[in-house]
Amino acid sequence: MKHVQSPLSVQIPSKQKHYPIYIEPDSLERVGQILKGHLPAGCKTLVITDTVVAGICAKRVQERLKQSGFEVYLYTVPEGEGSKTLAMAERIFAFALEIGLSRKDALIALGGGVVGDLAGFCAATFFRGVPFVQIPTTLLAQVDSSVGGKVAVNFQSAKNGIGAFYQPLAVIIDPLILTHLPPRPLKAGLAEVVKYSLIEQTCMAEEGFFEFLWTHAAQPDKVLPEIIERCCLIKAAVVAQDETEETGIRSYLNLGHTFAHAYEEITGYSALLHGEAVSMGMVRACRLAEWLGMFPTTDRERFEALCQEMALPMEPPEGLEPLQLLRLMRHDKKASAGTIRLVLPVEKIGHVTLKDDVPDETILSVL
Amino acid sequence: MKHVQSPLSVQIPSKQKHYPIYIEPDSLERVGQILKGHLPAGCKTLVITDTVVAGICAKRVQERLKQSGFEVYLYTVPEGEGSKTLAMAERIFAFALEIGLSRKDALIALGGGVVGDLAGFCAATFFRGVPFVQIPTTLLAQVDSSVGGKVAVNFQSAKNGIGAFYQPLAVIIDPLILTHLPPRPLKAGLAEVVKYSLIEQTCMAEEGFFEFLWTHAAQPDKVLPEIIERCCLIKAAVVAQDETEETGIRSYLNLGHTFAHAYEEITGYSALLHGEAVSMGMVRACRLAEWLGMFPTTDRERFEALCQEMALPMEPPEGLEPLQLLRLMRHDKKASAGTIRLVLPVEKIGHVTLKDDVPDETILSVL
Repeated sequence: MKHVQSPLSVQIPSKQKHYPIYIEPDSLERVGQILKGHLPAGCKTLVITDTVVAGICAKRVQERLKQSGFEVYLYTVPEGEGSKTLAMAERIFAFALEIGLSRKDALIALGGGVVGDLAGFCAATFFRGVPFVQIPTTLLAQVDSSVGGKVAVNFQSAKNGIGAFYQPLAVIIDPLILTHLPPRPLKAGLAEVVKYSLIEQTCMAEEGFFEFLWTHAAQPDKVLPEIIERCCLIKAAVVAQDETEETGIRSYLNLGHTFAHAYEEITGYSALLHGEAVSMGMVRACRLAEWLGMFPTTDRERFEALCQEMALPMEPPEGLEPLQLLRLMRHDKKASAGTIRLVLPVEKIGHVTLKDDVPDETILSVL
Repeated sequence: MKHVQSPLSVQIPSKQKHYPIYIEPDSLERVGQILKGHLPAGCKTLVITDTVVAGICAKRVQERLKQSGFEVYLYTVPEGEGSKTLAMAERIFAFALEIGLSRKDALIALGGGVVGDLAGFCAATFFRGVPFVQIPTTLLAQVDSSVGGKVAVNFQSAKNGIGAFYQPLAVIIDPLILTHLPPRPLKAGLAEVVKYSLIEQTCMAEEGFFEFLWTHAAQPDKVLPEIIERCCLIKAAVVAQDETEETGIRSYLNLGHTFAHAYEEITGYSALLHGEAVSMGMVRACRLAEWLGMFPTTDRERFEALCQEMALPMEPPEGLEPLQLLRLMRHDKKASAGTIRLVLPVEKIGHVTLKDDVPDETILSVL
């Protein structure tokens, strides 16, 4: 036998992955047709949805899938962050086993970020990964969580503590579905939209999204397809540069999020929608950057004026303990060795940078 | 704003992944030194081991890691397949949170296949993935489960039902450790070694491993480093061609495994070691291939003679119900839409092929 020197080396050749995002009014009507191009004919599809979305469009999606020849199963979880647990994932695993779901079949998330994250985690780990399709039904999920492959459930104090990077086969976005949903999640989603306008130029060679939002601030719902498209373009550009948060570019998407996660955790993941917490977090990040002299007061004011015009929540609930918030920020999974790593706006709207040396007292002053 | 046509496309550029496998007598002594080249200085390391291995070498590994400046934590799970559960993974997640493990730190599996699979699943999913090191301490784990990135826990009736493809940062193999372990797992590991000799030429442009094993069949423990190296080379070649079981090449590694999984499941994952079940499964696969006229009787006899010389278990326990075994084989996760997909030897020793059209009665005749 031939001998080689230790260490041997295992090479995993890289595969270029790419997947389409369909953004079209009434794409839900075409869901079966679209998926025929991505899944084996007649395969099983397990649609995961929640109790709210089930009443709005689950039946329609089921019918369209059946009409295209797919075998369709539905699993409905209770609405809300409380469903993003390992226990709920286990129930879905058990159901998937029961219906005999195989690696040739597909798991479809039909819902907001909670459903997408939960179903995505199940798809990433069931039999080490089954084909996965995202059909996001909230603005937040359409512009953020459905694109980029981050899937997870919460674990104890760790939001998204257990998860994976697992890219979907396709994302199907129907902007019209948003008109059937209550206004609060739509508003919360706009916070994440505004975030993209604050990071745009650092992430891609484009500008003008902030101005576009400013122009349409009174009635953003009139330009939802354009908004969603622009956000997905920015998100896709970031993910393409840094799929698994290695180079730091992907962390720009976390503008406001280290604050937001602390707000969500301290209020028990129930009082605030994620987008609402992000809105409050961005306000803190901008004020902090202004305080540090990195970000002009005029830009901070323009940003806050946009938030006001869009009626985004800017102030956290009363009575939160700043020191406790700071402690929670330190335990964020983006924190490394106890330092708090923040994405902050810099120079002007559209540009951000990473900072991990902001003194605790300075952070406390904006909390 | 510029407009693009739906669907947008997300491109994930591929990253060439590669990692070293250190195969050296006494590499356990150098574990700290080796890992200094792969992990940040002074980072936390959480060593997962089991109650048997803990008594043999956990202390030594802990000391060597400390001497190299790492912060070391140990988590010991009960020995055996019973520890490969989501419940056990949750206990490890809770401990990892408690010690403040971050994405800059590392999880180290010190043990056999159960520990590697369990710790690997935790590493793959904790905070969506933390650096992972494999230190396999059984022959089976050294030649098979520690290389290639398949990690998982069992779920209900599904062996390895929940898992991921997650490559380690490095694999450290110490052939000397095997001399401290009981003989039964060593024997079981030899079954997987023999498997490599049956698939060698289909997987890489090499031959002669079967003859090498034949020459040393009476005392394989005298040539363990050579055996481990050859098996890792074959495994690495396969994984490099098909990381996530997409092209089918990786499934050649499953020679005998569809039978083996059924034997393990029907006996409650406790009576048989995995390697023992694989040995019995390979015997079935060879007899089936002979029966189908694909594999010469002389080669089947040479293979069985090697098994006998190595004292590998060839016959399953008495009283197993063939129809029930067949049903379990049909539910194997490699099965697609109810057909049983088998890897079978073809032509001569060293060559295998995939077959999914073997009639039930024919399979039953070898069970």
